[in-house]
Amino acid sequence: MRKADVVVIGGSAAGIPAAITSRRHYPEKSVLLVRKEQQVLIPCGIPYIFGIVGCPEKDLIPDAVLEKNGIELLVDEVTDIDRDAHTITTAGGEKIGYQRLVLATGSGPIVPPIPGVDKENIFAIRKDVAYLQRMCDAMDTCSNLVIVGCGFIGVEIAEEARRRRKDLNISIVEMLRHCLQLVYDEDFCVKAEEALQNQGIELLLDEKVESFLGGERVERVRLASGREIEADMVIMGIGAAANAELAKKAGLEIGPTKGIQVNRYMQTSDEHIFACGDCAEKVSFFDGKPSRLKLASIATMEARVAGANLFSPRRVNMGVIGVYSTILGETAFAAAGLTEAEARKKGYTVIVGEAEAVNRHPGCMPGAEKLRVKLIFEAGSRVILGGQVSGAKSGGELINAISACIHQRMTADDIATFQTGTHPALTASPIAYQLVNAAEMAIANSWKLSSRWGMSG
Amino acid sequence: MRKADVVVIGGSAAGIPAAITSRRHYPEKSVLLVRKEQQVLIPCGIPYIFGIVGCPEKDLIPDAVLEKNGIELLVDEVTDIDRDAHTITTAGGEKIGYQRLVLATGSGPIVPPIPGVDKENIFAIRKDVAYLQRMCDAMDTCSNLVIVGCGFIGVEIAEEARRRRKDLNISIVEMLRHCLQLVYDEDFCVKAEEALQNQGIELLLDEKVESFLGGERVERVRLASGREIEADMVIMGIGAAANAELAKKAGLEIGPTKGIQVNRYMQTSDEHIFACGDCAEKVSFFDGKPSRLKLASIATMEARVAGANLFSPRRVNMGVIGVYSTILGETAFAAAGLTEAEARKKGYTVIVGEAEAVNRHPGCMPGAEKLRVKLIFEAGSRVILGGQVSGAKSGGELINAISACIHQRMTADDIATFQTGTHPALTASPIAYQLVNAAEMAIANSWKLSSRWGMSG
Repeated sequence: MRKADVVVIGGSAAGIPAAITSRRHYPEKSVLLVRKEQQVLIPCGIPYIFGIVGCPEKDLIPDAVLEKNGIELLVDEVTDIDRDAHTITTAGGEKIGYQRLVLATGSGPIVPPIPGVDKENIFAIRKDVAYLQRMCDAMDTCSNLVIVGCGFIGVEIAEEARRRRKDLNISIVEMLRHCLQLVYDEDFCVKAEEALQNQGIELLLDEKVESFLGGERVERVRLASGREIEADMVIMGIGAAANAELAKKAGLEIGPTKGIQVNRYMQTSDEHIFACGDCAEKVSFFDGKPSRLKLASIATMEARVAGANLFSPRRVNMGVIGVYSTILGETAFAAAGLTEAEARKKGYTVIVGEAEAVNRHPGCMPGAEKLRVKLIFEAGSRVILGGQVSGAKSGGELINAISACIHQRMTADDIATFQTGTHPALTASPIAYQLVNAAEMAIANSWKLSSRWGMSG
Repeated sequence: MRKADVVVIGGSAAGIPAAITSRRHYPEKSVLLVRKEQQVLIPCGIPYIFGIVGCPEKDLIPDAVLEKNGIELLVDEVTDIDRDAHTITTAGGEKIGYQRLVLATGSGPIVPPIPGVDKENIFAIRKDVAYLQRMCDAMDTCSNLVIVGCGFIGVEIAEEARRRRKDLNISIVEMLRHCLQLVYDEDFCVKAEEALQNQGIELLLDEKVESFLGGERVERVRLASGREIEADMVIMGIGAAANAELAKKAGLEIGPTKGIQVNRYMQTSDEHIFACGDCAEKVSFFDGKPSRLKLASIATMEARVAGANLFSPRRVNMGVIGVYSTILGETAFAAAGLTEAEARKKGYTVIVGEAEAVNRHPGCMPGAEKLRVKLIFEAGSRVILGGQVSGAKSGGELINAISACIHQRMTADDIATFQTGTHPALTASPIAYQLVNAAEMAIANSWKLSSRWGMSG
């Protein structure tokens, strides 16, 4: 019987770093990664295969990263786990022994049972090269593309579809009142909507799909409002569900959002089996409540916790913060932690500060673009809860400074007196630096708040 | 007699944020800012007036920022402080009463007494519009520019001089073995040197100026090695010294680096007088020893501490970290905290990790450029001591995430499991994200180190 000290099931954003981390922390242990896909897609790159990248074949994670780290690869599907015998069985008929097992089986798209959803030319986002190539082909010949769901996947695919086809009619249907509403506060959402509309993408907000109409192939989408829109291609982008079947079959505990239940060490209910990434249950960094967030960057973090803990608990996952970035039109949009709306909903009393400045100084330096930062703090402790950024592309790294602040539960004063590196050709001036000033504005706003309450400032 | 609750002396990177912070924290207090300059230059923008920006008039801080924040402005030179009477006297004959006084008098260039240093066409970097305009004019007509000092000012002016004049001979003389040696480790310095040499800038490293030769006007520079080089324009860029005369005259304590002595609240030896920015004494964030660092971004931080503490101690300055960024050729160079060499010199046992990847994913995304991160940790605690970044421009914001990590004394494990926002068009993939991987590599290196020492990994 084949054996490996560590067997990782899954070869994407969770599986790869779990295997690498295991090799780094326990170099004497052998690691075998088993995955069913011949080729692995870069998950966050998928929307871009329709436009800038051009095709799925250009959006692959090279296997060289496994080889370089001394990780063995087996392309095969794992069908069973025998927890007592410490073995797995594959569709190819192999039985493989393990000391530690890591489940990194990912997620699949949610496709709700809307009438007509099985018609031809209705797609979901499957991480499968051949399937995505068929989607590219369909996009080349269709006239009316309807995207269901105005989250990141939806808006990014809409933009890339526009890049691919100037003549295509593109619309997005979204149940909520705003695009990207779960991640940004309303004013940021409105800017994102403008960026999409400026590219001739129609937004049907506060609308729900009732049914898909047509013959074998989709022809129209009927909305709950009664409106019908032409559609010869539909893409469902409404979220993903954990691939937890294998774990369930093995009798592992499943959590409230239907992911594989894990503790802070990323251990499942079987202490020799770990889970990480989209297949694993998550809690919020803030209140510890179950979270449905599924992001490649969370998957890699969890994988680095799981991989380090396989033979001795070394790291703790304190829960998901949620750090996102995207670019719409020429504007970067990034967010970390809670939005103001979400924080209030969770019961926090909040103070908010905003600052906007160009990302150069003086403003006549080439490449000067506006960059706006909004920060949200708990009013009493002034601990940061979240931040949002829009504008220049450097916002894509600035959000990671904000994420570090959230991780460390920094207060508005900590951030206001935080030492920043600034440069005329790279950032705002140290006087106008947005992150620091947004914290200062939140404090200034809190003085106003407390004087309104009759407290002394 | 004129009176203001708060009087700030100085109107640049320290004075402005000190005044603004005071207004934000104590909105009921009146603030008067007194400065001697008619116009205030953006200090970090000065090298760029010779090239991209074009002239000093385009590198000014607008006075609107004072007005907007309800700060009164007086252009006049303060000649005396009467600490008992709580008044200042100006060259214009005004006597002004204060409750709290903030000294933000900045620094002036160090000009060592090298023989011939007073010859015509030898300049230092004075924050004076007319003087800098004369420098621009001199640069337009000279043939051989010699810059003394290969720190940030020196290398940035060299590049901008090249941008202004393709036909100019430009050389930089530096005492140390490498350019920017105090801020970067050797491999980063070598890259910076290549970027300069590729633009036809000659570097004379490990060389010292012995004298300036010529008639009234400089004609040649004689080096200690005996070499002589042609020079009809010289710019001294070897550092700055605190403007502490006014404080000294008022009997305030002066510190070991000749700055105005302050405590952690930025209070001078007179509890009603605060000092911040280049004129104030500084200590290192790491060991608390005196530090000669003078940066606009440090000035603004200290100003935000001073301004908030004027009537009640609210913030603490834990000392300077030193966060820098610049761009040479098309490559951004940024650094925060200690270099590896400096850390070893201070007695730390260090572990180091590096990671390089393109700042896009997949790598075929437009705008993909390499971005390299090096992190330095104390070996036993694994607390971060410093970081260096080179490559894509987004490194200018990434260094601020590293600065946050240093502020919070994050460990390599904290950083390795830190949640990052990543996006195909903005950053490396979450698997390859450089900051996280550099921390992971440092940990992997520490295992190797401890197994070499015979400790169990």
